[in-house]
Amino acid sequence: MTKQTFAIIGLGRFGSSVCKTLVDGGAEVLVIDKSEAQINNYKKIATQAIIADAQDENTLKSIGIRNFDHVIVAIGEDIQASILVSLMVKELGVKHVTAKAQNKYHARVLEKLGVDKVVRPEREMGKRIGKGLLSENMLDYLNLSANIQVAEIKITKPSFANKDLAKLRFRNHYHLNVIAIKRNDDIIISPRADQKLLVNDSLLVVGKTADVDHFSQSMS
Amino acid sequence: MTKQTFAIIGLGRFGSSVCKTLVDGGAEVLVIDKSEAQINNYKKIATQAIIADAQDENTLKSIGIRNFDHVIVAIGEDIQASILVSLMVKELGVKHVTAKAQNKYHARVLEKLGVDKVVRPEREMGKRIGKGLLSENMLDYLNLSANIQVAEIKITKPSFANKDLAKLRFRNHYHLNVIAIKRNDDIIISPRADQKLLVNDSLLVVGKTADVDHFSQSMS
Amino acid sequence: MTKQTFAIIGLGRFGSSVCKTLVDGGAEVLVIDKSEAQINNYKKIATQAIIADAQDENTLKSIGIRNFDHVIVAIGEDIQASILVSLMVKELGVKHVTAKAQNKYHARVLEKLGVDKVVRPEREMGKRIGKGLLSENMLDYLNLSANIQVAEIKITKPSFANKDLAKLRFRNHYHLNVIAIKRNDDIIISPRADQKLLVNDSLLVVGKTADVDHFSQSMS
Amino acid sequence: MTKQTFAIIGLGRFGSSVCKTLVDGGAEVLVIDKSEAQINNYKKIATQAIIADAQDENTLKSIGIRNFDHVIVAIGEDIQASILVSLMVKELGVKHVTAKAQNKYHARVLEKLGVDKVVRPEREMGKRIGKGLLSENMLDYLNLSANIQVAEIKITKPSFANKDLAKLRFRNHYHLNVIAIKRNDDIIISPRADQKLLVNDSLLVVGKTADVDHFSQSMS
Amino acid sequence: MTKQTFAIIGLGRFGSSVCKTLVDGGAEVLVIDKSEAQINNYKKIATQAIIADAQDENTLKSIGIRNFDHVIVAIGEDIQASILVSLMVKELGVKHVTAKAQNKYHARVLEKLGVDKVVRPEREMGKRIGKGLLSENMLDYLNLSANIQVAEIKITKPSFANKDLAKLRFRNHYHLNVIAIKRNDDIIISPRADQKLLVNDSLLVVGKTADVDHFSQSMS
Amino acid sequence: MTKQTFAIIGLGRFGSSVCKTLVDGGAEVLVIDKSEAQINNYKKIATQAIIADAQDENTLKSIGIRNFDHVIVAIGEDIQASILVSLMVKELGVKHVTAKAQNKYHARVLEKLGVDKVVRPEREMGKRIGKGLLSENMLDYLNLSANIQVAEIKITKPSFANKDLAKLRFRNHYHLNVIAIKRNDDIIISPRADQKLLVNDSLLVVGKTADVDHFSQSMS
Amino acid sequence: MTKQTFAIIGLGRFGSSVCKTLVDGGAEVLVIDKSEAQINNYKKIATQAIIADAQDENTLKSIGIRNFDHVIVAIGEDIQASILVSLMVKELGVKHVTAKAQNKYHARVLEKLGVDKVVRPEREMGKRIGKGLLSENMLDYLNLSANIQVAEIKITKPSFANKDLAKLRFRNHYHLNVIAIKRNDDIIISPRADQKLLVNDSLLVVGKTADVDHFSQSMS
Amino acid sequence: MTKQTFAIIGLGRFGSSVCKTLVDGGAEVLVIDKSEAQINNYKKIATQAIIADAQDENTLKSIGIRNFDHVIVAIGEDIQASILVSLMVKELGVKHVTAKAQNKYHARVLEKLGVDKVVRPEREMGKRIGKGLLSENMLDYLNLSANIQVAEIKITKPSFANKDLAKLRFRNHYHLNVIAIKRNDDIIISPRADQKLLVNDSLLVVGKTADVDHFSQSMS
Repeated sequence: MTKQTFAIIGLGRFGSSVCKTLVDGGAEVLVIDKSEAQINNYKKIATQAIIADAQDENTLKSIGIRNFDHVIVAIGEDIQASILVSLMVKELGVKHVTAKAQNKYHARVLEKLGVDKVVRPEREMGKRIGKGLLSENMLDYLNLSANIQVAEIKITKPSFANKDLAKLRFRNHYHLNVIAIKRNDDIIISPRADQKLLVNDSLLVVGKTADVDHFSQSMS
Repeated sequence: MTKQTFAIIGLGRFGSSVCKTLVDGGAEVLVIDKSEAQINNYKKIATQAIIADAQDENTLKSIGIRNFDHVIVAIGEDIQASILVSLMVKELGVKHVTAKAQNKYHARVLEKLGVDKVVRPEREMGKRIGKGLLSENMLDYLNLSANIQVAEIKITKPSFANKDLAKLRFRNHYHLNVIAIKRNDDIIISPRADQKLLVNDSLLVVGKTADVDHFSQSMS
Repeated sequence: MTKQTFAIIGLGRFGSSVCKTLVDGGAEVLVIDKSEAQINNYKKIATQAIIADAQDENTLKSIGIRNFDHVIVAIGEDIQASILVSLMVKELGVKHVTAKAQNKYHARVLEKLGVDKVVRPEREMGKRIGKGLLSENMLDYLNLSANIQVAEIKITKPSFANKDLAKLRFRNHYHLNVIAIKRNDDIIISPRADQKLLVNDSLLVVGKTADVDHFSQSMS
Repeated sequence: MTKQTFAIIGLGRFGSSVCKTLVDGGAEVLVIDKSEAQINNYKKIATQAIIADAQDENTLKSIGIRNFDHVIVAIGEDIQASILVSLMVKELGVKHVTAKAQNKYHARVLEKLGVDKVVRPEREMGKRIGKGLLSENMLDYLNLSANIQVAEIKITKPSFANKDLAKLRFRNHYHLNVIAIKRNDDIIISPRADQKLLVNDSLLVVGKTADVDHFSQSMS
Repeated sequence: MTKQTFAIIGLGRFGSSVCKTLVDGGAEVLVIDKSEAQINNYKKIATQAIIADAQDENTLKSIGIRNFDHVIVAIGEDIQASILVSLMVKELGVKHVTAKAQNKYHARVLEKLGVDKVVRPEREMGKRIGKGLLSENMLDYLNLSANIQVAEIKITKPSFANKDLAKLRFRNHYHLNVIAIKRNDDIIISPRADQKLLVNDSLLVVGKTADVDHFSQSMS
Repeated sequence: MTKQTFAIIGLGRFGSSVCKTLVDGGAEVLVIDKSEAQINNYKKIATQAIIADAQDENTLKSIGIRNFDHVIVAIGEDIQASILVSLMVKELGVKHVTAKAQNKYHARVLEKLGVDKVVRPEREMGKRIGKGLLSENMLDYLNLSANIQVAEIKITKPSFANKDLAKLRFRNHYHLNVIAIKRNDDIIISPRADQKLLVNDSLLVVGKTADVDHFSQSMS
Repeated sequence: MTKQTFAIIGLGRFGSSVCKTLVDGGAEVLVIDKSEAQINNYKKIATQAIIADAQDENTLKSIGIRNFDHVIVAIGEDIQASILVSLMVKELGVKHVTAKAQNKYHARVLEKLGVDKVVRPEREMGKRIGKGLLSENMLDYLNLSANIQVAEIKITKPSFANKDLAKLRFRNHYHLNVIAIKRNDDIIISPRADQKLLVNDSLLVVGKTADVDHFSQSMS
Repeated sequence: MTKQTFAIIGLGRFGSSVCKTLVDGGAEVLVIDKSEAQINNYKKIATQAIIADAQDENTLKSIGIRNFDHVIVAIGEDIQASILVSLMVKELGVKHVTAKAQNKYHARVLEKLGVDKVVRPEREMGKRIGKGLLSENMLDYLNLSANIQVAEIKITKPSFANKDLAKLRFRNHYHLNVIAIKRNDDIIISPRADQKLLVNDSLLVVGKTADVDHFSQSMS
């Protein structure tokens, strides 16, 4: 397992957050930004920090962009720059390119240019927050497939209190499997059927998205 | 369970994504934006769509903002407007206010004003993407507590192939519980100890964050 | 009585006037402004003058802002900067913070952040000038309480000339106490009841605001 | 005593504060501003509200500016407009003109044009706030002449408690006359020599500015 | 032979020149531009002229862009708009798309999106003018293949005068075929070997580009 | 044959393309542009590259503009600069001046100032592209005179296949002379009357423009 | 003597002054300007006033510009517009065109386009004012030819007082002819040799420019 | 007669023309302008050339503005700067100040500040040009008093040819005195009554403005 190398182009809110996460995870990270002030802030954080305009193909060549395992095009507002830099990075032969897009057309252009992963942060966080607002008791979730979800759901109904999982017949009633229970700071993994629930427990369940939503909304 | 009402102030990328998610979830949603073009786009999507400057307190009063269960202040770039509108919305008595922040100072001011949930989409998605890049085999994750994580991890090492969970001694070796296995389109919930693994299976595991990271990186 | 220290952030018209007054009163004053030209003007006036952007938290820390007895946030037009700097200054632990506000919402945000005194110069001078215009003979005033005022009022009516205070029965007629008389360059403190008035004398009276207004307007 | 009429040109923070004070005092007030939005806000407050550019001499003539007793030129940032409008207003024969100035040169030009009273709000409030900061116990003050001041000063030193004015020998020691004492919500006018003081009393004193400052600072 | 239909997006100098040429050639042409003034100029010229922002996908759909045989994306300076519109036009299924590009990166992105013909007018005219300047006697040219050219070359050397083609041995000496001679207003097609040349005749020759250049420069 | 010298003023898309073509043709080329970045790009390409504002007459004199054989005024968007520089260049005595124009009025002014050749790239390329779109089988063309044209036309009609030129009676039917045939990579110059045609051959014909158009369109 | 007609394009300070002078002289004057406000000011002054952009050739044609005896192109700051409009006006056949220029290059271009009279107001008034400053006693002047001037010169030297023209020997000493004497409000035309001068008389003299200057400076 | 000193503030078209005229007249001239480029152009022309912002009072003091005999405030477009600088220059004690004004209000403010001569170049040249257009035969003129004018008028009517002044009865008919005749390059001063006129002679006449105008128009 060789150490992977990353280059991040653009140190806006998104790029700088990717940078910090990668550095915290022990990765080698090169960052490029046009702003001297921003680069100065990251000189001590990133492995290497360069003031440059990534739209200049010579810049990309001279830093050997093709040798990086991953390039993240995190250019903020300038759609044109994002497209041109993504084109150059792919044509210079980078294998894994992640790029941020502003809207669906931008995303489609990036895909046509061969960008491997297109991210739309505002839209994706908007979805996540919207989902949370709809069901305040669904604390977080993770999609296993298009229609299978793992979710953490808080028990708020007194009618659930002091009943065990067997009695509540989760599988029959809610078509869900309870794979863990969070109670205060403890996590009970693969709880047994006779495990009793308390109000304010959080259940980690797995099942169809529609069933998860239905159970979560029944807690409202 | 009465139907909850939402007001979204600002229809940028974040606000419009929240709006669509809420509407898809069946909620009643009022949207306010200064841009006539943007409001026209949402007239058919939202329950009610109003062209107005939310910085005008009279506007907020006349639409009865205090009667909404949740208000989402999704104002994009203008930090001052975000702060003033959040102030007014809280002082008019709205119980649940979610607001988007640009940076940590903005977030702190919003908290001081009593905003209930402060979101920083670019930063949070940056973290998530960074994490994914660090460990390509960790497909997604969910934090149960500060140091307990549920994660979906892809099996890439041939040495795992055709061995069952008992033999691999997940609990002893990796300090992780396998709570589900995703194989192509199937999900095997609470797999038995004699369940054999295949390369390209995804395991849903629960355990300490450090242990999850360790196992995920062992797949690289 | 130890000498107090002051830091003024922003050298616009308001900040520079506070600075000069404090320096004239013998105080130690540090000033911070983004404009090199403005700082150069105050290098000889203030104890210390620094070119810096006070929105940078590191700047505030490096000048030891927490050690100042008073900080005056005199940032002119930029409401966002005023709010963020006030937040930082309070969070860094400054005990006494005075800040200038542009409007009532700005003022309310500053109060929520814990600013000790919020000043709105244009509005307050507008009130003072308006009051003076309403009653040209009320030369100046000072509010002792919500409804008790000390005011300096010019005698313009010939019917007052050469009458003494006893005869004019100030207390009975006007419900006012005359505590001083200004005649040209002289001040007669606590005048006796047989003191005669002349046209163009100014009386320093104390009484209810409504009575002061009534007497002042009787001179028009 | 006929009712006086006022015209205010410019409804910024200063002009609108003058307007409200005059209207509260029962005066007839015409307001002129270029901004339709601002005029709409004052339609119900002022006697008459006109959207117009006061730099157009025909506008000033057609509204009969010469018939107003007082004109207040409260034009905000645009020094040139302030000067040209002040010129026109004086040349059209208005007797009493008050104008706001941005700096000392602006003020001198206005004086040369015959403006009767020139106000510099930011500078004057800066002075007042600076004075207050220097001596926190001097709550407010009023200048009777160039070097005689009436001031309200809070008693904070325990050594003053329960002593009467005679004993404290105000006149000898501090060269000040105590003309009133504020105690909680009461005002004791022309206190007798045997009046005892309490900590937190506020004294209304009259005397030389230097003596007032000296006494005020002795309380720090 | 059915009549072909054309849509031109953008009526700058390039788009409007394409439009006039197509209309002069009898084609049906729809033009789209954001500028009302520009559209008014073309209402009488084009078959149909629409004021619209082509970046709005709904606009493109509502005018039935997919039904046009050719679409010319003649958007001037805005590279981003050019890219997004080209994407939409191709995705909506238009068979033949010609687009103008500003530089080589822009051209490459357009090609990746499937644009059929990419034109760079300034660059191509620059080449043509440069070529003409190099050899003033080469009046115009046409590339038959990568290295075969037809060119019109003026005879300026007196030594050619009154000699026939046979004598001048064009094929042997210059490796060129003379396919026509222009003399004043006449054109002599496929001239015979005994045709005599005059100074100021223009020869239409065909041959290798290098040979054409060589002969053309021999006239300087 | 002495080597000619060229000066190009303005290195936009047009000027830089002229420059490259001239340099490729072996000419000596001086370039002038206001942009340091642009000049740096051409330092290695042009014989001499100067950062200067050509609107300054002293600059033109000091570089000895009058000694150049040709000057190309390739100033992009700024019509005023284009006019003033063209004036100076002509008045300083340059014999051959080529200038780029934005529109017909600009072109007429340049002609009045004595500019020898006025080019309008966008318009001319627009014509060329329009012509190509009208008749897809006319691959390129060259105007010999106002109404005589040489054109390369693709044979698409099966009815032409395997017939010889004699049989097709080009002169009688189409009033055109076939002066060459392009077949794949070969060129058959002055084809004989018994030469057979194949579909996808391109014919190089000469004749009246109307006849060329007619034949070309018969292929659609 | 038929009445002449004038069209003025541009109502800046120069154009509007020409307009007023022509109207005062009884001429028929059409004015054109882009600004509605400016045209409204001249509706009552000019014979006809049109809001239009004179750079649009159709506008110039539709108002029949060719029928005016004189056209004055008084366009202010926009050199390009001045040039293009002057071109159109001359090409449409106007006989007498006067145009204002900003600098010598602008002036030269206008001359090349056939403008009959080019005026540079700031430069010409600068000369006149400079001349007046050099010699305060030369009140005004008029050039009869390149080196003959008529000038009005004030007598300030006491040594001239009460001496007659004969005695002062103007022709011999100063090489000047005195053609009139202005004394207070009277003008003495062709004064006799025995006419005595007084201090503060103004002499109208004619002579060589150098002699006029010399005499004028002798009065300083 | 000591040499006078001049300072010119602002080197726009007007200021630079004044400067050149003064320098040509042998005066000592200091010039001040904010633009380094402009000052560099005048370093060799003026006696002294300073890059400075004249709105800074310290600048004016440090160059000893009070010691100049004349100051010309030739500031171009910025009315506010023109007013403030004129104020400072007068208050610093300069005796003779000439300033350029943009409009009548600007002119009136300058007069109120004590500026000695206010010039409005565009307006004054407009008058002069308008006058010339009205009467093409009045070549130039000079106002001796409010209604007495000296004018140079061209003789165009054949009926004047070969008649002498006596016969034409200038004084009786036209109420004008002919004080000189310009014929080609000669000037005939104080012509005798028997002097014959020729067509194309120019007469220098003196008389009432109305009579001059009448005679001049009779030549049209």
